[in-house]
Amino acid sequence: MLRNFLENVRKNSPLIHCITNYVTVNDVANVLLACGASPIMSDDAAEVEEITSICGGLNMNIGTLNKDTIASMFLAGKKAKELGHKILLDPVGAGASRLRTETAAKLMEEIRFDVIRGNVSEIKTLAHGSGNTKGVDADMAEEITGQTLDQAVIFVKELSRRTGSVIVITGAMDLVSDSRKCYVIRNGRPEMSKITGTGCQLSALITAFITANPEHILEASAAAVGMMGLAGEIGWSRMQPGEGNASYRTRIINAIDQMDEELLRKGANYEMR
Amino acid sequence: MLRNFLENVRKNSPLIHCITNYVTVNDVANVLLACGASPIMSDDAAEVEEITSICGGLNMNIGTLNKDTIASMFLAGKKAKELGHKILLDPVGAGASRLRTETAAKLMEEIRFDVIRGNVSEIKTLAHGSGNTKGVDADMAEEITGQTLDQAVIFVKELSRRTGSVIVITGAMDLVSDSRKCYVIRNGRPEMSKITGTGCQLSALITAFITANPEHILEASAAAVGMMGLAGEIGWSRMQPGEGNASYRTRIINAIDQMDEELLRKGANYEMR
Amino acid sequence: MLRNFLENVRKNSPLIHCITNYVTVNDVANVLLACGASPIMSDDAAEVEEITSICGGLNMNIGTLNKDTIASMFLAGKKAKELGHKILLDPVGAGASRLRTETAAKLMEEIRFDVIRGNVSEIKTLAHGSGNTKGVDADMAEEITGQTLDQAVIFVKELSRRTGSVIVITGAMDLVSDSRKCYVIRNGRPEMSKITGTGCQLSALITAFITANPEHILEASAAAVGMMGLAGEIGWSRMQPGEGNASYRTRIINAIDQMDEELLRKGANYEMR
Repeated sequence: MLRNFLENVRKNSPLIHCITNYVTVNDVANVLLACGASPIMSDDAAEVEEITSICGGLNMNIGTLNKDTIASMFLAGKKAKELGHKILLDPVGAGASRLRTETAAKLMEEIRFDVIRGNVSEIKTLAHGSGNTKGVDADMAEEITGQTLDQAVIFVKELSRRTGSVIVITGAMDLVSDSRKCYVIRNGRPEMSKITGTGCQLSALITAFITANPEHILEASAAAVGMMGLAGEIGWSRMQPGEGNASYRTRIINAIDQMDEELLRKGANYEMR
Repeated sequence: MLRNFLENVRKNSPLIHCITNYVTVNDVANVLLACGASPIMSDDAAEVEEITSICGGLNMNIGTLNKDTIASMFLAGKKAKELGHKILLDPVGAGASRLRTETAAKLMEEIRFDVIRGNVSEIKTLAHGSGNTKGVDADMAEEITGQTLDQAVIFVKELSRRTGSVIVITGAMDLVSDSRKCYVIRNGRPEMSKITGTGCQLSALITAFITANPEHILEASAAAVGMMGLAGEIGWSRMQPGEGNASYRTRIINAIDQMDEELLRKGANYEMR
Repeated sequence: MLRNFLENVRKNSPLIHCITNYVTVNDVANVLLACGASPIMSDDAAEVEEITSICGGLNMNIGTLNKDTIASMFLAGKKAKELGHKILLDPVGAGASRLRTETAAKLMEEIRFDVIRGNVSEIKTLAHGSGNTKGVDADMAEEITGQTLDQAVIFVKELSRRTGSVIVITGAMDLVSDSRKCYVIRNGRPEMSKITGTGCQLSALITAFITANPEHILEASAAAVGMMGLAGEIGWSRMQPGEGNASYRTRIINAIDQMDEELLRKGANYEMR
């Protein structure tokens, strides 16, 4: 699945507009540079439409949303859509507050995202909030395991069908799905959850991949997910005695910077459902 | 003093709501993960009460305060108090502007903090601003040394009595005090002051420790202070040729990640006054 | 050119007020500490005048400007000017949106900056926006090379004459110019552009250097530019197998922390035009 998607990012160097949280924003910028893309962060209503116009993709992350940046998200999202740019939503903390849940739901109503990426709990919240067919998703467990995988695949395909977006659920196993096909990806390491922002970084990477590979949204998203997981494995293998989560963070971004198609092909661990 | 406090953080994994500055926020998030807690950053008035409700502790830091986040601090603080959550105030820069001094003073008037942590100058500012007994604190020097320690211990106990908060003053020596007992902690290294945010990180750690050890506010705060200092010593011992403050920052968070009760017991350097 | 400028920063430890973007702010703070200065970040209109009053220099960066922080920039800039403080403008993204271009132009109209630092494209935008003599600058290429250097030197001297500011253009070659003399600096490495914020860091360093060496704005700026480039070379020489842009970022700040006048004198690579 992974052939050439990374190469296209490095070749085209897409400019990615990020409206993102201030917690992980520096890592998001550095990981975009590591994969060959370029970041622009901008969240003021007076300029986001103009900024997004000169970019190729838009990465929207509600991790530290506020009344001003929410307004900017709608403006930028509509403008980007109008221009045919690729757009991703990372609904950080959807379900943790009404503001987050409702903002994500409203964004999904007014803008069709190319990709939506979150953890199980965030994506389940969106599924509830964006429709009234609670049947399937209500049955999905909080962690996707071998036993709940079949259910989860049905859920994620159905959600993709309803939303028109590729859905990415990350966790111990990662699912990347449109309404027909679902990649199940088993790269990564549990220790990645001890670093703040690996999810935010992945969302930025996916945005870069789909912007540079606009004809292959599903596959390019899966490639980005596989690459992030593989970077987590490579980074971990380089850890020295006494190192902990702060060094691991650095080593993962390093691994993205040093990644190539050959490594990706060898390291990718996935199946199709 | 240190027995089991860290273990309880790792076991209970408390969720800590941080309203904090955008300078050091990433390190604050990673250090909370390193010690076994989980961070949520949120500062919009429309959601802070709801966010703090799902957390166990609240870490408030005025390092880059603004009119919007100040309003959120009052909302979150009152809600957290109402729910019996543990709350810490880090009055970054109190004394540097009226806005900071008055915001800290007003927060202290309306919310009884479990812990207040700052450097000598910040804590002295609060002492002046929050009462009219200037006698003792006016006599306290800017740096606590062997010669001024007795005075400082009297000052910090008195301030704790007046405020009802455990007071933590960090510097060359650290004091952690309630109205009756004062820990004097001699861990840490002077080079820690060449890294931005070690104070902010410590405040987050204390919040995690008191949230996971709610019956032992004083001792758990002292344990967190000792752990941060010890991490500074361990991190420093691992520095390689050519490394400077940027690597030191990473090595300190690594040391928190790798810390255990055994290391803490062996490394803690404190006395009681 | 470099003699003693760094030493003066380390000796005087100037306090630098930064109104800067939230993407690279942590690195900006750590690099200021690394060179011996002290950072204060503050951007609320209610306190910026007071905060800037206790500082020696003001570093203004429009990387993530918004309506609130723009207002603060004018307040802080005028106050700092009134007090005779050194002031630098980093017009991040000027040309990418009207908001950025117009904010930079208006700041330049109302405040005479001691130094303005940007890349070729940003500085060209300012030249167009701040006057109507398009002749020279319209001829300047996007990248300064051996072939376009003569033109670029004429352009930058002319812009310095018109604005009254020392102009710093960074890229493959760096120019540091007043209306009469132009330093052409050839330190640095192309890989520095794969790290977010090396430009922001440099602007902070220049602010520290001119604040600690107020009688030598041109030379102190050139010394800071040379030091940043040299740190990029030293950091690169220390890279280990498997390391990428995230480690490089750390190694550059380390190199600033470990820099001394001796290293600077030996490593500086510049000529005067």
